[in-house]
Amino acid sequence: MNEELKNQVLSAREAARELRTCASGQKDRALRAMAQALKDRRGEILDANEQDLAQGRKRGLNSALLDRLSLSDSRIEELASGLEELANLPDPVGEVERMWKRPNGLEIGVKRVPLGVVAMIYEARPNVTADAAGLCLKAGNAAVLRGGSEAIHSNSAIGNVLTDAIAQAGLPGTAVSVIRNTDRNLVRELIRMRELVDVVIPRGGAGLIRTVVEEATVPVIETGVGNCHTYVDKAADLQMALRIAINAKLQRPGVCNAMETLLVHQDVAAAFLPALGAEMAQKVELRGCPRTCQLIPQAKPATEDDWATEYLDYILAVRVVPSFEEAVAHITRYSTGHSEAIVTEDYTAARRFLELIDAAAVYVNASTRFTDGGQFGLGAEIGISTQKLHARGPMGLKALTTTKYIIYGNGQIR
Amino acid sequence: MNEELKNQVLSAREAARELRTCASGQKDRALRAMAQALKDRRGEILDANEQDLAQGRKRGLNSALLDRLSLSDSRIEELASGLEELANLPDPVGEVERMWKRPNGLEIGVKRVPLGVVAMIYEARPNVTADAAGLCLKAGNAAVLRGGSEAIHSNSAIGNVLTDAIAQAGLPGTAVSVIRNTDRNLVRELIRMRELVDVVIPRGGAGLIRTVVEEATVPVIETGVGNCHTYVDKAADLQMALRIAINAKLQRPGVCNAMETLLVHQDVAAAFLPALGAEMAQKVELRGCPRTCQLIPQAKPATEDDWATEYLDYILAVRVVPSFEEAVAHITRYSTGHSEAIVTEDYTAARRFLELIDAAAVYVNASTRFTDGGQFGLGAEIGISTQKLHARGPMGLKALTTTKYIIYGNGQIR
Repeated sequence: MNEELKNQVLSAREAARELRTCASGQKDRALRAMAQALKDRRGEILDANEQDLAQGRKRGLNSALLDRLSLSDSRIEELASGLEELANLPDPVGEVERMWKRPNGLEIGVKRVPLGVVAMIYEARPNVTADAAGLCLKAGNAAVLRGGSEAIHSNSAIGNVLTDAIAQAGLPGTAVSVIRNTDRNLVRELIRMRELVDVVIPRGGAGLIRTVVEEATVPVIETGVGNCHTYVDKAADLQMALRIAINAKLQRPGVCNAMETLLVHQDVAAAFLPALGAEMAQKVELRGCPRTCQLIPQAKPATEDDWATEYLDYILAVRVVPSFEEAVAHITRYSTGHSEAIVTEDYTAARRFLELIDAAAVYVNASTRFTDGGQFGLGAEIGISTQKLHARGPMGLKALTTTKYIIYGNGQIR
Repeated sequence: MNEELKNQVLSAREAARELRTCASGQKDRALRAMAQALKDRRGEILDANEQDLAQGRKRGLNSALLDRLSLSDSRIEELASGLEELANLPDPVGEVERMWKRPNGLEIGVKRVPLGVVAMIYEARPNVTADAAGLCLKAGNAAVLRGGSEAIHSNSAIGNVLTDAIAQAGLPGTAVSVIRNTDRNLVRELIRMRELVDVVIPRGGAGLIRTVVEEATVPVIETGVGNCHTYVDKAADLQMALRIAINAKLQRPGVCNAMETLLVHQDVAAAFLPALGAEMAQKVELRGCPRTCQLIPQAKPATEDDWATEYLDYILAVRVVPSFEEAVAHITRYSTGHSEAIVTEDYTAARRFLELIDAAAVYVNASTRFTDGGQFGLGAEIGISTQKLHARGPMGLKALTTTKYIIYGNGQIR
């Protein structure tokens, strides 16, 4: 075991113990100090970021990756205002959600408390460092942060700034702890420290998430992949369906709640698909079933793989289905359980879709692009869970907490 | 991959799909039919149990294990009435816990839904087969059950009876599925079927739980070990403390919520420990710190290991602590996060203990023996979680469910 890592996590654990009983006001003051420090010391952060960018260019990172890696005055402003917004949100910790009295007089309450030490494993974006640190602190947790090696200088600089600000605000600076050693073996060690780390949250591509799930013995909150469908029912308002399909695919194709497959009931395919083709074929590569290819000349034939792929790109799979049941069966087979939508004016189809589809978010007559903590009104988002334990769908601050039973007695025995 | 196992799990998955949308009334009718069938076909079950017992005797199982393995008319009656009680509990599924409207008119609800396929891995007790099947079915899940090889005939017989009863009640019989192949490799395969199994719940000793946590890629709900403490504060009512200590240790020493270590503030040690010794030393092996051994002549010296051990036996570790802080530090160091109690009449000590101790259940002035779904009034219990994700403490039916967001729109796009 790497001693340095272990000591770092032990310090985080100490900090978590202090944060657990920390009043909201103090946490919020620390968040505001963190925001201010990011702005005050932006020079330091941008210098470090420049080192990462230079290295990235040398290593031949593509422009999309370099863009994700790069910070600027305005991006740092955004990080700072994100932390200020967190300071203004209600504290999830300390609420007693229910309390009841048993026949023997025991009073039992369910109290919301922090998780403890939260480890985040993520990829190239250095903004996650500030976001994750803020979210964890607001929920009373210590954050142990392991970002991608491409962003190591930026992450370290942001970590220094935040740690100093937290300490100046009177809380333990080790509440935010950036792992500066880029050895990959340390990740494996970290996610197996069952005695010291309470939860691990991987944020990034499918490969990263798979590795963490496979290797971790610490409980994992999985943020997931979205192979999202929109089903245009035979009773759809086709104008609405077109608007929703365009939005779900095109408003931001690179994110997990964007549509990847469009299903269309055969009764409306001839009326709907040519219109869709006219709107989309110039911007999006359409890959269709045979019937789709008849109705949209620009469409290429889809393969089995297309139904299962999260493109995150200007590509859309399209399939004509003979029935509502077949649409549900297709989604059940290929869905990753993220966001699924039906467009219909039929009461029973809407209700059955909501009931039959097993996903984190199931929509009637709206774009799947709404699956987002901000859009749902949760205030802040750590990620979107596609697993079923602990949290499902957009995760707000509450997903970074747990509960404990508190029991008030006056001498009860069994 | 074992094809038979895979097919069995696929059938369970089919069943889960049907159960997901099944009305409460139908599930409750199936539970009552299961109860009746256990009674009607008890001969078959007892015959199978006799085979397991004969084999167990041949293999030299000790009498405690043989007792856990053995069924009788009255034990089968208990299993049946357990299922009937489940039928009378409210259904956790289908409740919309919250629903709100966004500024854009979207209505977003959080709806409680089944998990899907729940795998249970457990040891010698065949009663778990009926319990787990009932709990899973009530919560709308299919259960895939892998009990210990010692109980294979009993578990298979119970499985047959339940499957038939469920099918006769009009639900898919494969909602309850007993794995009859005792090859240990199948357990490993089962807990790695991420695409097919939604959750795995190990129930049994620390070794079993460790193996499952280590090997599983399916999310695990961990039921845990209890190294439970009772701290007698300097402001304790010593009569009450004695009553609570005796109850917490002696009422049923072999269970996870029994006390394993007693901590006593030095100011009351001389008044309290001799009285404790007088009450307990004949029934319980006391292992104490040096001060304890002075005050209780029958006590043996404790070693470092004693503070960390869950005895589940007539053994108690006892330590005199110089302060409240030292008691909290001791518990923080050795606690498994199950149940911890303080006995005190001091307002601030009580409040601080509730806040500082990080455990599933934290008590003031009551026996830790109350940490139990029935005692808490949860209606039914699947186990007691000592982890922090999803469920913590006694888990009722709700722990066997998840939620999904349901979103009603009228054409909203981003």
